[in-house]
Amino acid sequence: MKLPEIAKIIGGEIVVPKGLETDIEITQVAKIESAKEGEITFLSNPKYAKYLSLTKASAIIVPKNISDVPIPAILVDDAYFSFLKIFLIFNPPKEPIKAGIHKTAVIGENTKIGKNVALGAYTVIGDNCSIGDNTKILPNTVISDETEIGNDCLIYANVTLREKTKIGSRVIIHSGTVVGSDGFGFAKVDGKYTKIPQLGNVVIEDDVEIGSNCSIDRATMGETRIKRGTKLDNLVQVAHNVIIGEDTVIAAQTGIAGSTKVGNNVTIAGQVGIVGHIEIGDGAILAAQSGVSESVPPKAVYFGYPAKPHIEEKRRQVSLKQLPEIIKKIRRFEKELEELKKK
Amino acid sequence: MKLPEIAKIIGGEIVVPKGLETDIEITQVAKIESAKEGEITFLSNPKYAKYLSLTKASAIIVPKNISDVPIPAILVDDAYFSFLKIFLIFNPPKEPIKAGIHKTAVIGENTKIGKNVALGAYTVIGDNCSIGDNTKILPNTVISDETEIGNDCLIYANVTLREKTKIGSRVIIHSGTVVGSDGFGFAKVDGKYTKIPQLGNVVIEDDVEIGSNCSIDRATMGETRIKRGTKLDNLVQVAHNVIIGEDTVIAAQTGIAGSTKVGNNVTIAGQVGIVGHIEIGDGAILAAQSGVSESVPPKAVYFGYPAKPHIEEKRRQVSLKQLPEIIKKIRRFEKELEELKKK
Amino acid sequence: MKLPEIAKIIGGEIVVPKGLETDIEITQVAKIESAKEGEITFLSNPKYAKYLSLTKASAIIVPKNISDVPIPAILVDDAYFSFLKIFLIFNPPKEPIKAGIHKTAVIGENTKIGKNVALGAYTVIGDNCSIGDNTKILPNTVISDETEIGNDCLIYANVTLREKTKIGSRVIIHSGTVVGSDGFGFAKVDGKYTKIPQLGNVVIEDDVEIGSNCSIDRATMGETRIKRGTKLDNLVQVAHNVIIGEDTVIAAQTGIAGSTKVGNNVTIAGQVGIVGHIEIGDGAILAAQSGVSESVPPKAVYFGYPAKPHIEEKRRQVSLKQLPEIIKKIRRFEKELEELKKK
Repeated sequence: MKLPEIAKIIGGEIVVPKGLETDIEITQVAKIESAKEGEITFLSNPKYAKYLSLTKASAIIVPKNISDVPIPAILVDDAYFSFLKIFLIFNPPKEPIKAGIHKTAVIGENTKIGKNVALGAYTVIGDNCSIGDNTKILPNTVISDETEIGNDCLIYANVTLREKTKIGSRVIIHSGTVVGSDGFGFAKVDGKYTKIPQLGNVVIEDDVEIGSNCSIDRATMGETRIKRGTKLDNLVQVAHNVIIGEDTVIAAQTGIAGSTKVGNNVTIAGQVGIVGHIEIGDGAILAAQSGVSESVPPKAVYFGYPAKPHIEEKRRQVSLKQLPEIIKKIRRFEKELEELKKK
Repeated sequence: MKLPEIAKIIGGEIVVPKGLETDIEITQVAKIESAKEGEITFLSNPKYAKYLSLTKASAIIVPKNISDVPIPAILVDDAYFSFLKIFLIFNPPKEPIKAGIHKTAVIGENTKIGKNVALGAYTVIGDNCSIGDNTKILPNTVISDETEIGNDCLIYANVTLREKTKIGSRVIIHSGTVVGSDGFGFAKVDGKYTKIPQLGNVVIEDDVEIGSNCSIDRATMGETRIKRGTKLDNLVQVAHNVIIGEDTVIAAQTGIAGSTKVGNNVTIAGQVGIVGHIEIGDGAILAAQSGVSESVPPKAVYFGYPAKPHIEEKRRQVSLKQLPEIIKKIRRFEKELEELKKK
Repeated sequence: MKLPEIAKIIGGEIVVPKGLETDIEITQVAKIESAKEGEITFLSNPKYAKYLSLTKASAIIVPKNISDVPIPAILVDDAYFSFLKIFLIFNPPKEPIKAGIHKTAVIGENTKIGKNVALGAYTVIGDNCSIGDNTKILPNTVISDETEIGNDCLIYANVTLREKTKIGSRVIIHSGTVVGSDGFGFAKVDGKYTKIPQLGNVVIEDDVEIGSNCSIDRATMGETRIKRGTKLDNLVQVAHNVIIGEDTVIAAQTGIAGSTKVGNNVTIAGQVGIVGHIEIGDGAILAAQSGVSESVPPKAVYFGYPAKPHIEEKRRQVSLKQLPEIIKKIRRFEKELEELKKK
């Protein structure tokens, strides 16, 4: 593919250093630090600007505010996103499984399988399920009774969906994840814990993606729900009756305790812990490892343990830094005060 | 079912507002905020008291100290537990798998299978195992050689039990959990880590429940043991040679390092980390995200990072809040002292 | 086996209390607190020294600096490592699976299987894979297309290896672990998250061991790499494009965010969180639950949240302890200053 053709696709302007050609052939995409001749790369994160003069790439996609690029460049609004478009043209994604139902797939009674569905080897589908068109289920995944899965979903290997789970369309679930395990509910009766039956379910709306080895518990009653477009990283814990809004992102190893409501467009970093029965407002941001013990207002930025508004916590941490010096000062004051009193 | 019949089952007293009937028909149970006509609900957590006047339920189970309920009520000692009793009558739990051994189950040599056992599709059971009466093992679960499982257990799909694991009766293990993986033990020899063989096993006593995607490591020598009635949430890490007492609860994403002993009736919240080779006393409580680096006495309440007794840590956090103000004061003192000294 | 024979194997010196014999028969190894007659034990951790006078063992392996042992002892440089040598002689490890390809194993097209390979029941191997000599893959594990595995590897049950994963020789991967799941990458376009395709892979070098239920994500482009001899505990998160050096150990529930580089010989304790795009220098030590938000120099010891150099953080924590007392002092100063000013 020629450079001008690429510029046209991403709607960018070509700028070429003196003495270099515009009409060059591009054969692949690559990262700026490892690109070879014939490849196109990109610059988005300023941390990588040092590679501008070092890269072996034949061309580069850069933001409009970058100048003095030593190789042919395409100037665009969002260099990363433009690069991805080209990336996909050079590397069209391969289907992770061939369509068709493997002869070893076990399918329960009264279960409906849509058109063009792929069921991998040793998949087990329960009774009274429905699986939408073009959905792909990879080997050794277990889908329990009365589960509904929409169209164009991708459920990787070794996933477990418990009974009555409802999954929308274009949902991706990575390997090892368990959806619909029992919520953690026990009543102490005569000093022993009696299991509280967990009879609700889990609902996962359209365009949600869930990472590997996550645990999403079913509701005690009613539902645990993850709304449209939300993305979960790996090893995330979602307890019973949690509701997570739309277009929210949750990084790895975060845990959300029972009945908490997370709003829309919330950003939750890694290893955050959120206590039960609180609300995280729309657009809030929770920094990594925060321990959130109270409701967070919309658009607020919280961090710390226990988590506090960002500015408050920052101030406290700055104060904390001064603490050893303060202690020294106080010792000096003590002496000076004594001396003054003697006088 | 009529309301007086329900009151009899849970041993409660019916109180009906003037003008309303007692002998009403109840068709289902529901949560207070979503109950419909004909349904019975409950009030236990005071946070939900605001729904008392809003609920569409036809009757409600409430604690004895609640008065002025606008709908027919049954007064009991423990509203939640009474509600659960009724819940189960209206919603008898469905068996997660039919009894019988699926034709694809692979069973090793010299393995004993009890009466009325269910083995799901593609389960793999090793040599010299024994599986007790009425135990249910769901699809794609792997049980390794010389493993013993008691009666009335429920092992969900995609679980892995490693060799020589011993499991009591009425134990529940959720999907994705691994019991008996090697403890994390290496000796540094000539700058390289040499694996220390992990030749002990894991023992799980009666009435234990283990959540999804947990990792319970086998002992180096001897055993890792979880005692009777203890309940683990999801994504919990239990290292080699850990002993966990009876009737203890451990919330999600908590990790316990090697050889630590946790007592009976301990309550451990989510994302707690406990260092190795210490003891957590009976009845202790560890707050969420605590980093426990020293032994905790019986009945103590610890929190913080590093974890300290609750009162000490609370005091420290209150002091911390005053820190920016203290720094201001100190600056003022400094000036005032200088002025006084000049005089 | 006689005691002198054992002493010869581990190169130690026998010391026997007066009146006791040297040429005793040893039948098994055991821990100091539970050893019985005829068994040999060891003492390495000083915490267990109290058992020296209590143990029922017939002999003990101890470090050279220990004296006054009341039972026959072998003095060595490293008691634990010496003990392990003897441990393995008395308890030769049993193969976790018989060699041979189970008749239910599904093997894709153009896949090469080495000599003496074991493939367990219901394993699924994709197209264009290669599996080296003596490698063992346990039941229900799924290995995706174009994956390469070296010689003498041990992949436990219910593991998922995604496409194009490259694994060296003598690698051990425990159950439930997922290698090569998609990195967590989304671009926000018109307020919605668009998936960034994750087209790189994961490379795991020789002699690496990975615990159970870990998530190792594939790179967006290029590779995620874990270098020779490194050991990961359970439930560890390794994000896309992370590079982990040689001979590094990472304890349970630690998470490493995208593109971070961890050096050689690094020690990372449990539940540590490491932010993306930073570097952890060779030989660094990160204490448990640390929240690492900036690069760490080689050989540095960091702890805290946010993590700081050990000494700095220790000083701060000591200061913090004095805080309530400081506040009291300041109140006193305030009064005294006022009084002085009045005068």
